[in-house]
Amino acid sequence: MSQVERIGVSLEKDLLATFDGLIARRGYPSRSEAIRDLIRQQISEERLSNPKATAVAAVFLVYNHHATKLMEELAGLQHSHLLQTISSMHIHLDEHDCLEVIVLRGPAGEIKKTAENLISLKGVKLSRINLLTTEAT
Amino acid sequence: MSQVERIGVSLEKDLLATFDGLIARRGYPSRSEAIRDLIRQQISEERLSNPKATAVAAVFLVYNHHATKLMEELAGLQHSHLLQTISSMHIHLDEHDCLEVIVLRGPAGEIKKTAENLISLKGVKLSRINLLTTEAT
Amino acid sequence: MSQVERIGVSLEKDLLATFDGLIARRGYPSRSEAIRDLIRQQISEERLSNPKATAVAAVFLVYNHHATKLMEELAGLQHSHLLQTISSMHIHLDEHDCLEVIVLRGPAGEIKKTAENLISLKGVKLSRINLLTTEAT
Amino acid sequence: MSQVERIGVSLEKDLLATFDGLIARRGYPSRSEAIRDLIRQQISEERLSNPKATAVAAVFLVYNHHATKLMEELAGLQHSHLLQTISSMHIHLDEHDCLEVIVLRGPAGEIKKTAENLISLKGVKLSRINLLTTEAT
Repeated sequence: MSQVERIGVSLEKDLLATFDGLIARRGYPSRSEAIRDLIRQQISEERLSNPKATAVAAVFLVYNHHATKLMEELAGLQHSHLLQTISSMHIHLDEHDCLEVIVLRGPAGEIKKTAENLISLKGVKLSRINLLTTEAT
Repeated sequence: MSQVERIGVSLEKDLLATFDGLIARRGYPSRSEAIRDLIRQQISEERLSNPKATAVAAVFLVYNHHATKLMEELAGLQHSHLLQTISSMHIHLDEHDCLEVIVLRGPAGEIKKTAENLISLKGVKLSRINLLTTEAT
Repeated sequence: MSQVERIGVSLEKDLLATFDGLIARRGYPSRSEAIRDLIRQQISEERLSNPKATAVAAVFLVYNHHATKLMEELAGLQHSHLLQTISSMHIHLDEHDCLEVIVLRGPAGEIKKTAENLISLKGVKLSRINLLTTEAT
Repeated sequence: MSQVERIGVSLEKDLLATFDGLIARRGYPSRSEAIRDLIRQQISEERLSNPKATAVAAVFLVYNHHATKLMEELAGLQHSHLLQTISSMHIHLDEHDCLEVIVLRGPAGEIKKTAENLISLKGVKLSRINLLTTEAT
C-alpha cells in the first residue's frame, strides 16, 4: 500500500447529510472509505474497456447436477484454459441445483471469452460474469 | 442549492494519481466535482430500490417507422398515462429507423411499469429504460 | 425489414409458464416479439464492445438551471461535436432542476467520449449514458 | 427438470443470421439453449425486484491481506449471519492482494444488506455483488 494523501472535497450540506445516511446503512467505517470505494470502482470499470488489461473474472453458474455431461465439459473447458483458471468452488443449492464459482485470471478480453464459453454450455441455467481489473488499485 | 461544506478525504497516492488521470480524460473541472458525481449516482441508485420514490424515466426506443400501428400505440399509451408523460422527442435515424425518447415522471415503481409496456410494443427493435430519482440531490 | 423465418425452440414447461406470465405483465403481443427483443438486445450489447461500431448515444442529464454557465458549456460542447450531435430536448423538472436529453450518433468509442465530457461538466447533478448500436437490427 | 415443450418463434432472416453468428462465437450447442438462457436471465431479474424472493448472492472482494483486521471482521460478519452464509473461497492474487468469494442464501433483500455490509468493510478495495433467484428456473 502506498503513502496516504489527504485532499479536500466540497459538497452541498444536503448531499453530505444524505451520503452520511447511506454510509451508516452500509456500515462504512468512514467517509474516506466510502469515497475510496467509489473511486476504485470507477477506475476499474474504465480499465476494463481495454481488452489487454490484466483482470480477474468470477463466473457464477447455476446448473442441474444431473446434467453430468455438463460437469465433464466444465472441467474440460477449465483444463483447456489452465493458465487462466485459478480455482473453483462447488455448492449444493438443493436436491437438483448446484452453484459453481469459477475464478479466471488473464487479459480481460481473453478471460471474458472463456467465461462466455463456460456460461454457454448446455445445462447452465443461470449465470453472471464479473470482471475486475486489479492492477494498481 | 444548499450551503457548501468542505470535508477531508484520505486516499493512497497511487489511487489519487490514477483518479486524477481519469478526471482529466473525462474533462471534470475538479476532483470535488468528480466525487460529487459518484456520490449522487450512488444515492440515486439506493433510492430507486424504493418503488414509491419520485423518479424520472427516460425511455429510448428504436423502431421502424413503417410500423405505423406502433406509432399510434405509442401515442395511445402515453395519453393513457398522461399524468406520467412529460415529453417526447422523435429522431429519424435512417430511411427505416426512428429513435424516440419518452420522458416519464412519477413513483419509480409505476413509471417503470409504464416504461416496460412501451418497450414491449410490437415493432420496437431496441430499447433502454433509465430511471433516476431526483429528490434532494 | 427482411423476410421472416420461423424456428422451433424447446423449453421446459415450467420455464415457459413463467415466461408467459412475464410476457403478459409486460404487455408483449406474442412470445416471438418478447424473444426477438431479448435477441436484439444481446446482439446490440456484443456490438458495443467494438469502438468503431456505428452507434447512437442518448445522454440524460439533470442539472440546476441557475448554473447558467453550464447551459453555455453544454451548447458549446454540442456545437464542437456538431457531426455527432443530432438533437436535444430540455424539460423543466421543478423550480430548480432541468432534465436534458442529448442524442449523439457516430462510432461507439467516439460518442462515448463526447458523452463522458458532457456529464463531467460542473453543475450536472445526475446522468446516464445509453449506447445502442443500430446497424442491421 | 420438467417436461419439454416446443414452440415456434418468428424472426427476420437478417436477425437470425446475426444471432447464429453470436451463438457460434459463444459456443452455444443450439439456438434453443441460447434462447433459454436469455429467458431465464430475464425471469431472474424480474424476481429480484421482490425483496422476499429466495436468492443466492455471490460476493467478490479484493483486499490487501496485510489488513489483518479485515479478515477477522469478514469472518465475524459471516458468523453473525450464519444462516445466510453458505461457503467462501479465498484466492491469492499476488503478494499483496486476495480475492474472496462469499456465497450467501436467503431472502433477496436481507442477503443484499449483508453483502453491502461485507463490501463496506475497511480494506476492501474492489467488490461486486451478484444476486440470482433460483426458484423454479
